[in-house]
Amino acid sequence: MKKIINEPESFVKETVEGIIAAYGDRLKLLNDDFRVVLNAHPVREGKVGIVTGGGSGHLPLFLGYVGDGMLDGCTVGNVFASPAYSKMYDTICACDHGAGVLCLYGNYGGDKLNFNQAIEDADFDGIRCTTVLGADDVASAPIEEKEKRRGVSGIVYAYKCAGAAAARGMDLDEVTAIAQKACDNVRTMGFALTPCIVPEVGKATFTVAEDEIEIGMGIHGEKGIEVKKMITADELAKIAVDRILADMPLTAGDEVSVMINGLGGTPLEEQMITFRAVHKLLSDIGVTVFMPHIGEYATSMEMAGLSVSIFKLDEELKGLLCDPADTPFYTNHNK
Amino acid sequence: MKKIINEPESFVKETVEGIIAAYGDRLKLLNDDFRVVLNAHPVREGKVGIVTGGGSGHLPLFLGYVGDGMLDGCTVGNVFASPAYSKMYDTICACDHGAGVLCLYGNYGGDKLNFNQAIEDADFDGIRCTTVLGADDVASAPIEEKEKRRGVSGIVYAYKCAGAAAARGMDLDEVTAIAQKACDNVRTMGFALTPCIVPEVGKATFTVAEDEIEIGMGIHGEKGIEVKKMITADELAKIAVDRILADMPLTAGDEVSVMINGLGGTPLEEQMITFRAVHKLLSDIGVTVFMPHIGEYATSMEMAGLSVSIFKLDEELKGLLCDPADTPFYTNHNK
Repeated sequence: MKKIINEPESFVKETVEGIIAAYGDRLKLLNDDFRVVLNAHPVREGKVGIVTGGGSGHLPLFLGYVGDGMLDGCTVGNVFASPAYSKMYDTICACDHGAGVLCLYGNYGGDKLNFNQAIEDADFDGIRCTTVLGADDVASAPIEEKEKRRGVSGIVYAYKCAGAAAARGMDLDEVTAIAQKACDNVRTMGFALTPCIVPEVGKATFTVAEDEIEIGMGIHGEKGIEVKKMITADELAKIAVDRILADMPLTAGDEVSVMINGLGGTPLEEQMITFRAVHKLLSDIGVTVFMPHIGEYATSMEMAGLSVSIFKLDEELKGLLCDPADTPFYTNHNK
Repeated sequence: MKKIINEPESFVKETVEGIIAAYGDRLKLLNDDFRVVLNAHPVREGKVGIVTGGGSGHLPLFLGYVGDGMLDGCTVGNVFASPAYSKMYDTICACDHGAGVLCLYGNYGGDKLNFNQAIEDADFDGIRCTTVLGADDVASAPIEEKEKRRGVSGIVYAYKCAGAAAARGMDLDEVTAIAQKACDNVRTMGFALTPCIVPEVGKATFTVAEDEIEIGMGIHGEKGIEVKKMITADELAKIAVDRILADMPLTAGDEVSVMINGLGGTPLEEQMITFRAVHKLLSDIGVTVFMPHIGEYATSMEMAGLSVSIFKLDEELKGLLCDPADTPFYTNHNK
């Protein structure tokens, strides 16, 4: 295992300590607990709180989106493992500013179980909570079973739009509805070229052959839908766009944002070449691409590969996407 | 070779086309020439122009720093190869706003040869040009031969400070002096874990063994100063800081910016763990870290590894570092 780390057991703690050392003017820990990260800036009383949580190993997901105009707090688990429910409860309590809390996270069994328990406890304390699940990975289940779909990089659009809605002063029901609409309007297809190694395990727990690509592999190495001999960027873009459009039809005049998300080991050049191909396919059918997101948004440590997300915009979502946001990993300064 | 590309011969062209498709509101090509990228925003007449150039395969370096508050233009060559002198000449001419042009680029033989020729031609046309070379890689030559040192990620600080100086309205001599001071105040140490593959070659032209790290390897795979069995993040940080401080002493009360630059295949988590260690070593000797830069600034495509840069600040450089900048790959919105 060749990773630039110290003891595998301290991977998560030292990652978070590094982040706080770097961005302590913007992020803070809750009571020195490195599992719970909060916005260090004062938050307006009466603003709806938005929290998330999930396993480590996906930076900037999840804690990287805590900050002005996005999330109020985040709890992180071990690598690829759900945070404890008690940490979720702590996060919810810390992020209630008197108007309730939206729990916005990915559709994974452990996270759901723990968040539901935490919400029950918070509710007992009089904190009203709602839940919206990111479930954008079209490869993870057919459309008839879309409640089984995993959440991947597309959730970043929901963080952005819901965060903007809360910053504008919308109430909990309105913010929840925006988050749900954002999640309903985004689809993602992932492509893996290599596995990644959980530090405490020390070796890959799944493989991708030297000359192959796995289509639809999840960000924890969940099995995809097809293994192919390596394909070109244009072929990859076609598979992604076809599959997404079969699930969420687009027609001439529609406007979308496109996210090309590097999984951790994929050069920016390859992401740009892929964006070029996706952009061309969408332009060819009269779909306009607005505010592309190209880079690393939801990774699997050193995994090579990328995911393509398409986020269908309407005027409301577009406006919210344009609102200012400022986190150490996501900034938007449109006025 | 497992890369998400189309024909290897179209790697550079399609990368730049992807960038323009994504950020065409901020970047434009000079006369549809994908080798020359300019700021698409109007530039104030009388502003000093700043241009750079270098091989492709290092995104966001070089063209990613073209934009408001940084560079006016950039020409790119093939992967790891100098741009043609005629393109440098075109770039200089396009970026002269009547106050002369600073050519700020890395200390590599081909780039120097070609830029010198281009400057000679531009001078003949009445465009006054100056040159500052990035040469921050302390591992590439001893201090007595520092004119032989290669330029790596540290040049980004020079782009930022010189760009801010030009935006403030300083004249060519002043902007040149700032760029030179920034280059004089930055030192970098690189660490490579894996090689990378030039698309047109199709296989790695150098190797790093499975359990080893090469200390001081350059961003084109230039030989480093030592090959070791894999080390920890804390050990790596110590080697980097010791070596840099032997070259550029720091004492209690000094203020620096630290850049942890992922080389392309290194997860953000490892960069954060390394930052934590560097930050601790500097804090221990009373040196303050201001505005850290952690992420990918100068890559070698899919190479795993990172570089550590330390940029010694004074009041002038600190102020310039804080000035606003807005490029697709580097934004700073301090007011």
